[in-house]
Amino acid sequence: MRYKAVIEYEGTAFVGWQRQTGISGKSVQEVIEAAIKSFSQQTVVVYAAGRTDSGVHALGQVIHFDLRVAVECYVVKNALNHYLRHEMVSIIHLEEVDEDFHCRFSARQRHYVYKISNREAPLCVDRMRMWHVPRKLNVANMRGAASYLVGKKDYTSFRAKDCQSKSPVKTIDRLEITEQGDVIHVEISALSFLHKQVRIIVGTIVQCGHGLFSPEYIETILEKRERSAAGITAPPYGLYLTHVEY
Amino acid sequence: MRYKAVIEYEGTAFVGWQRQTGISGKSVQEVIEAAIKSFSQQTVVVYAAGRTDSGVHALGQVIHFDLRVAVECYVVKNALNHYLRHEMVSIIHLEEVDEDFHCRFSARQRHYVYKISNREAPLCVDRMRMWHVPRKLNVANMRGAASYLVGKKDYTSFRAKDCQSKSPVKTIDRLEITEQGDVIHVEISALSFLHKQVRIIVGTIVQCGHGLFSPEYIETILEKRERSAAGITAPPYGLYLTHVEY
Repeated sequence: MRYKAVIEYEGTAFVGWQRQTGISGKSVQEVIEAAIKSFSQQTVVVYAAGRTDSGVHALGQVIHFDLRVAVECYVVKNALNHYLRHEMVSIIHLEEVDEDFHCRFSARQRHYVYKISNREAPLCVDRMRMWHVPRKLNVANMRGAASYLVGKKDYTSFRAKDCQSKSPVKTIDRLEITEQGDVIHVEISALSFLHKQVRIIVGTIVQCGHGLFSPEYIETILEKRERSAAGITAPPYGLYLTHVEY
Repeated sequence: MRYKAVIEYEGTAFVGWQRQTGISGKSVQEVIEAAIKSFSQQTVVVYAAGRTDSGVHALGQVIHFDLRVAVECYVVKNALNHYLRHEMVSIIHLEEVDEDFHCRFSARQRHYVYKISNREAPLCVDRMRMWHVPRKLNVANMRGAASYLVGKKDYTSFRAKDCQSKSPVKTIDRLEITEQGDVIHVEISALSFLHKQVRIIVGTIVQCGHGLFSPEYIETILEKRERSAAGITAPPYGLYLTHVEY
């Protein structure tokens, strides 16, 4: 039986989604695999729709795994939440799916939100949950910059050096910036992303919001096709994987 | 010189606003007084508009304190934020005020919000920041119950046994319930509150939302004038002091 689950996690205490060798600290994948083992005595591999980095949060990450025996969905869900109760990981929804479903390869759209607190005072309630940007941002310029980053493009300038994707060409379907009080949300959707693409986009847009370059300069950054042409990488703790569509 | 400041804190790690004797753990008051001492070498007493309990958060608590020498506001603010950088306390705004200003006695209205997550799955990102109520709430009934708790009333049934207020009569000016997805906010405003009044009101409204009694029964609870007539006390970590008006 194949099970698909929608999960939430607070990424601060994790080395990221994926099991890491040679790095101390636990991955989200590991703690879920351990929970499955605790309740089913089965050693399984759990797959995820998005391999989030250390510190990145998920409100709606999608995973799948197989169990040798069919167990009622509510039993699997409650058992996993029981064994995960001391971890910052929670199973929101769980269902049976066909064997040809793959959370990563069947995904049609991944939605992320990046949260920025644009105020002078240090963060307390939102510490490690938003990027604290003390200096006032020009949101109109950020929106202008964002408009150049929608569509099918070569995003070589916006990928991490260690990115293992074969092609740097991706299609960003949506990139919207909303403001509420001193909190700015950057919402971004695509079929898939390059490694650290969202964080480099946000870091670059924020530098545009600080007047480091004009919105139009994004075109030049894209044309240069090198990581050093773009701006900084925004910190991981502002980023949330919110939803995956199938 | 008297200084008024608007501050934020994450209440989880504190014994509450007020300095406590015989309880291990630090109070928000203590860490601010220590920060003031670090930067000014002065031992001062810091007053707050609302003496929040352990675990209760503040987005807009108001405090005041006196310094023997006049220091520029931005210097005081930045110095305090520097010395508070390892604490979950932050100075949002700071200004000079007249000597007759008292953050507690001059306040005209205190605004709180109580955050409830009404979903089955355990909380991760909002753990210790919302009350997790797994069983589905009837929000219409909660609104019905709330409507009986607005206005000038004897709130004896809704005060903690250790409440030291002389009179149990208070006026609740606003009590509104809003819903967004599975998050419910209870917004409540008054000149002042009895000890744990907001949390007992929320706990009672939630029990009404679970069908334990009808909205009209709130009238009976008020009439009984005893704590045992009302419902449970909602946990502290869902409660935020958002704003104080002068």
